[in-house]
Amino acid sequence: MTSSSGSEPRFIGIDLSGLVLRASIVNNSGQIEERRKVKIVADQLVTQVTQVVSELRGLNSNIEAVGIAIPGLVSRQTDRVVASRDFPLTVREDLHAEFMTATGARVEIENDANAAAYGEYKVGAGRGSRDMFYITIGVGIGGAIILDGKLWTGASGFAGEFGHITIDTEGIECDCGNMGCLETVASGPSIVRRANERLYRDGTSSLSRLAINKNFTADDVAHEANNGDDFSMMMIERTGKYIGTGVAIVLNLLNIERVVLGGGVMDAGELILNPIIQEARRRAFQPCFEATQIHAAKLGADAASIGVAMLARDAAA
Amino acid sequence: MTSSSGSEPRFIGIDLSGLVLRASIVNNSGQIEERRKVKIVADQLVTQVTQVVSELRGLNSNIEAVGIAIPGLVSRQTDRVVASRDFPLTVREDLHAEFMTATGARVEIENDANAAAYGEYKVGAGRGSRDMFYITIGVGIGGAIILDGKLWTGASGFAGEFGHITIDTEGIECDCGNMGCLETVASGPSIVRRANERLYRDGTSSLSRLAINKNFTADDVAHEANNGDDFSMMMIERTGKYIGTGVAIVLNLLNIERVVLGGGVMDAGELILNPIIQEARRRAFQPCFEATQIHAAKLGADAASIGVAMLARDAAA
Repeated sequence: MTSSSGSEPRFIGIDLSGLVLRASIVNNSGQIEERRKVKIVADQLVTQVTQVVSELRGLNSNIEAVGIAIPGLVSRQTDRVVASRDFPLTVREDLHAEFMTATGARVEIENDANAAAYGEYKVGAGRGSRDMFYITIGVGIGGAIILDGKLWTGASGFAGEFGHITIDTEGIECDCGNMGCLETVASGPSIVRRANERLYRDGTSSLSRLAINKNFTADDVAHEANNGDDFSMMMIERTGKYIGTGVAIVLNLLNIERVVLGGGVMDAGELILNPIIQEARRRAFQPCFEATQIHAAKLGADAASIGVAMLARDAAA
Repeated sequence: MTSSSGSEPRFIGIDLSGLVLRASIVNNSGQIEERRKVKIVADQLVTQVTQVVSELRGLNSNIEAVGIAIPGLVSRQTDRVVASRDFPLTVREDLHAEFMTATGARVEIENDANAAAYGEYKVGAGRGSRDMFYITIGVGIGGAIILDGKLWTGASGFAGEFGHITIDTEGIECDCGNMGCLETVASGPSIVRRANERLYRDGTSSLSRLAINKNFTADDVAHEANNGDDFSMMMIERTGKYIGTGVAIVLNLLNIERVVLGGGVMDAGELILNPIIQEARRRAFQPCFEATQIHAAKLGADAASIGVAMLARDAAA
């Protein structure tokens, strides 16, 4: 089962986003050799991480470090979580110290979007670029910046908050306290909200039968769009335009060489990628648009665990 | 008159923004020792620059290099101007080569906002910071990014286009081709346009007598605001809010340590700086806002000529 035969170093990458613990043994080339997936029980977080690390270490004696990707703002200065919607309690704890003690390993913690960005940069859709902007669109919208091969996390570790670009100054209130953030219109739950609003107002769509029970998801919208439902296609296209407006802002501010888009909402494929690229072209300075490549992410749900394992590896260098 | 007695190197900084050529001899500490100011005749640009360089070199024999700040996008890869509203002809010429040949000096050319940013960073309101975002608000709105002591100009030299952040997705058309750019509401001419629209619609204001002749400027609005005219104060405050929305986007994306705001519109002082800061606080992530300092620029109209002289100095290092 295991491939621990080589004496090459291995790294454990743990991704805590989406309330699921995904743990992997990652080799020096960024390939996953073992996986574990556990549903998170919030007040058992440290125990759950410790157990899975212990189990994976039992499989491979060359584990050199553990990387943990957390959905939340992680301060570079203190290695502490300063805000987390999914794990609000972690703000009061020194998770980094707890994990070090509990696992007995060298531990790096990082924001999940930063971790996924690093994964895509090293072994996914960012390969071959020097500078990259990463965007993840799912339940929330995150982002991360890589400049000259390194995560650029800003003065205190919070750079890359793409989801909180103001897209509509008079828009609806966002969890972050601002109004009209991109996240309020283009995240998975926002797509569902917008679709529901429209479905109850007008139109017929294959979503309607799901909407009657109010239980469809952004995945359903993407699925129906891919099946040719006009309304669902329109919803996905609009979402792409919102995201493309944000991408144009990033291109004008950073003149960045590559943009990589991942997260569940990007599973809609070209139906969303094309309007993103079109809107970015329409709104960005032409020379900034021409200097960039806009790609879909390649690593899917593995991006953050691979990335945070690579970050744990490179932190020692 | 001159202070060429020392054998310390000197640099010539030339700023071509606002259709005025400002040339200075700048010493190693970033202080201006001589100034010249000439109205630019567009088709005489190279000759005018050559003449002023020749004149200044006659005053000081220690000139090591010449920096030239140009309003327009300057490509890092080719040292060429790829877009310029004020000097559209320069796009077809190889200005850098022409200046080198004509002056016989080592020449660096740079975008004017980048140059001003570097000046503020080295000897102005950016001193003491490691990373800085610079914003200039005048006839146009420009920006520039300094990371870890160096201008961060992006894949091709165009990073920092703060004025072309989309602030209103359905807003009016911008020179850049996009709609609703920050520049369409917060630049000097946009303030005048907005004030005129409002004055003709309603309200009495000390601006009205100027508006009758349609000849007031953004400076007049700031002046009347400083004299306590309610309408003018409201116009300046709104402008500050627009800019603050853009600043919040920058803070969320870059988690930058310091923001420095310069350019003619900032002459309104606290009347505009305070709403900028308030709106940035309201819209940015709290930890990003708390990690930054927002300051007015200190070097006034000298920023770009000092900055581009320092850039010419540091390019040799």
